[in-house]
Amino acid sequence: MSSEKLTKVRIVGSGLIGTSIGLGLVQGGIAVEMIDSDPRSQSLANDLIGGVGVAAPELVVLAMPTSQLAVVIKREIDLNPHCTFIDVGSVKGEVELQVKAFPALSRRFLPTHPMAGREIGGAGSARADLFQGRSWILTPSEDIEPNSKALVLELISLLGATPIELSAVDHDRAVAKISHLPQVAASLVAKQLIDTPTEWMELAGQGLRDTTRIAGSDELLWKEIIFSNRTELQQLLINLQRDLGVMIDALEDPEKIASLIAAGRAGRALIPGKHGGKAREYSFLPIVIDDKPGQLGAIFNECAAMDVNVEDLNIEHSPGQLSALITLALSHSDAEKLSSHLISIGWNVHPIRK
Amino acid sequence: MSSEKLTKVRIVGSGLIGTSIGLGLVQGGIAVEMIDSDPRSQSLANDLIGGVGVAAPELVVLAMPTSQLAVVIKREIDLNPHCTFIDVGSVKGEVELQVKAFPALSRRFLPTHPMAGREIGGAGSARADLFQGRSWILTPSEDIEPNSKALVLELISLLGATPIELSAVDHDRAVAKISHLPQVAASLVAKQLIDTPTEWMELAGQGLRDTTRIAGSDELLWKEIIFSNRTELQQLLINLQRDLGVMIDALEDPEKIASLIAAGRAGRALIPGKHGGKAREYSFLPIVIDDKPGQLGAIFNECAAMDVNVEDLNIEHSPGQLSALITLALSHSDAEKLSSHLISIGWNVHPIRK
Repeated sequence: MSSEKLTKVRIVGSGLIGTSIGLGLVQGGIAVEMIDSDPRSQSLANDLIGGVGVAAPELVVLAMPTSQLAVVIKREIDLNPHCTFIDVGSVKGEVELQVKAFPALSRRFLPTHPMAGREIGGAGSARADLFQGRSWILTPSEDIEPNSKALVLELISLLGATPIELSAVDHDRAVAKISHLPQVAASLVAKQLIDTPTEWMELAGQGLRDTTRIAGSDELLWKEIIFSNRTELQQLLINLQRDLGVMIDALEDPEKIASLIAAGRAGRALIPGKHGGKAREYSFLPIVIDDKPGQLGAIFNECAAMDVNVEDLNIEHSPGQLSALITLALSHSDAEKLSSHLISIGWNVHPIRK
Repeated sequence: MSSEKLTKVRIVGSGLIGTSIGLGLVQGGIAVEMIDSDPRSQSLANDLIGGVGVAAPELVVLAMPTSQLAVVIKREIDLNPHCTFIDVGSVKGEVELQVKAFPALSRRFLPTHPMAGREIGGAGSARADLFQGRSWILTPSEDIEPNSKALVLELISLLGATPIELSAVDHDRAVAKISHLPQVAASLVAKQLIDTPTEWMELAGQGLRDTTRIAGSDELLWKEIIFSNRTELQQLLINLQRDLGVMIDALEDPEKIASLIAAGRAGRALIPGKHGGKAREYSFLPIVIDDKPGQLGAIFNECAAMDVNVEDLNIEHSPGQLSALITLALSHSDAEKLSSHLISIGWNVHPIRK
């Protein structure tokens, strides 16, 4: 069976992740059937992705809450006893424990975790491109079947993600720090906003918005993630609580305040650039345009004419005014070239920022 | 003097805020002179904005750290004894206290706080449009000279900002909650990242990036802001510390975890939309394009042809792939219209998200 290829996949769970996997696989030419405990959700998900009835799939994706894993495995293993299985849960130690109860599956179950998600869930929010360019973590046992692993790698590749192998313990420690800790912090900062006068809230700037964005996430999803990873998360929360205490005690001492803020800046600098790996360095070109149809198109036509590639773009409106500020992220040389060109033909271009 | 107009402004302090005010005023036709305790910074700032020597200004902007306010006022009041003064510091109770030492100034000093900034400081980061569409808070005393207030409102209007009057106490309480608390939280979460293995950091997603973005801020600026507002900030930090303790105690109880995360979502929902005032609701239209020059221009030409106004835009690249995902924020009706049109002419349009 070592040359088995992925042709048929069964996905159990039609939430954001399961349905997004389904969408991506169907676009990649794979036959997919979506299964859900709720018949209406199952029907909707199959309609959304173009799902079909699938007999004898090579791979079963378990995309439901980890708490239901044992029950679902028991049923699925009877239906497809020789199949490869993966889950996509956010905490892997818990999954390893649950799978231990099924020795027949030990060499054909590969715990995985795609590092992608959104603040909103459900099949309706699914995107075929959800995993494009993201990391997809595998925590395989040492004796995993080579063929099972190959099938999983093929699935990850079809979805445009990059496979990364970690031990389950390292995975759970890593996500506790880079995902679960910031989630708890964002939620608790946002909680402090309750009962704030409306006129104060209207002063909120981008800092508050960014710091609390993920506080909009679903509590049913997060209660399970936090609970499953509580062992790894607990010490991190205690450390944060201790540092808050240090800050409270430092309030009368500006130098101590500065050293805590500086430590934060040092930690922040360790986060790699947006595409993973090393940070890419862009130049930023601010342009003030009329806030009406046609202006952005005209700018991008000039970009195309100058063979300039726009890496990213931000738009800020000025309410009550008929202008908007757009900021293009470009390579240094493209920024210089485009800036000179746009100025020469009369656009309101501001100095390049690096 | 009640009909005095703003024609000449002296700005003391050539950092990000002072220089940005200078740039904006010069663009608005005002003669501006930048002053700095460092002669080289002063010279650079005047070169950047097109500053000129200004005699008998109507208004002096004090844009240096609040801790130096008394010393600078003493000097400036001798130079321009009949002038109107404002400061732009982030904490206003402290400013009121310092200005009380100058009774001659009491009716001509108006404490203000423009709600704008960037993670990076200095004259080189200044932007004439920094205040466009932002709130600019005034905390005037009851007996402020009407003419002084009119000059300040003219300055705010010239810079494209919206004036908002608050008491100094309300201002300091509001910014403690919506600005200084998130800053401390972001810095302390980012501090926890120190000594994290590089391969774990490479798994960082947008959640961690957003939650810690403002942790990149300057510690010299923030030590002064936090220290000046420590009275208002202290209780908020204690509340956050207490809620962290509640979360730590709740780790064995999924329902308690869920209620804390849900409270965060409720608090987050109180933040108004990006333009201030009530949140504007957009539809989001995802489109997969080839990642090469010309594609964005073509999309925006279609927008213009359909009379569709793009409110915001996000670009996500897929590294190692020749495609990019752009997501347009549009009104509901524009999204429907554009989606049908783009699909009909062959673009890879994904379902609208609300």
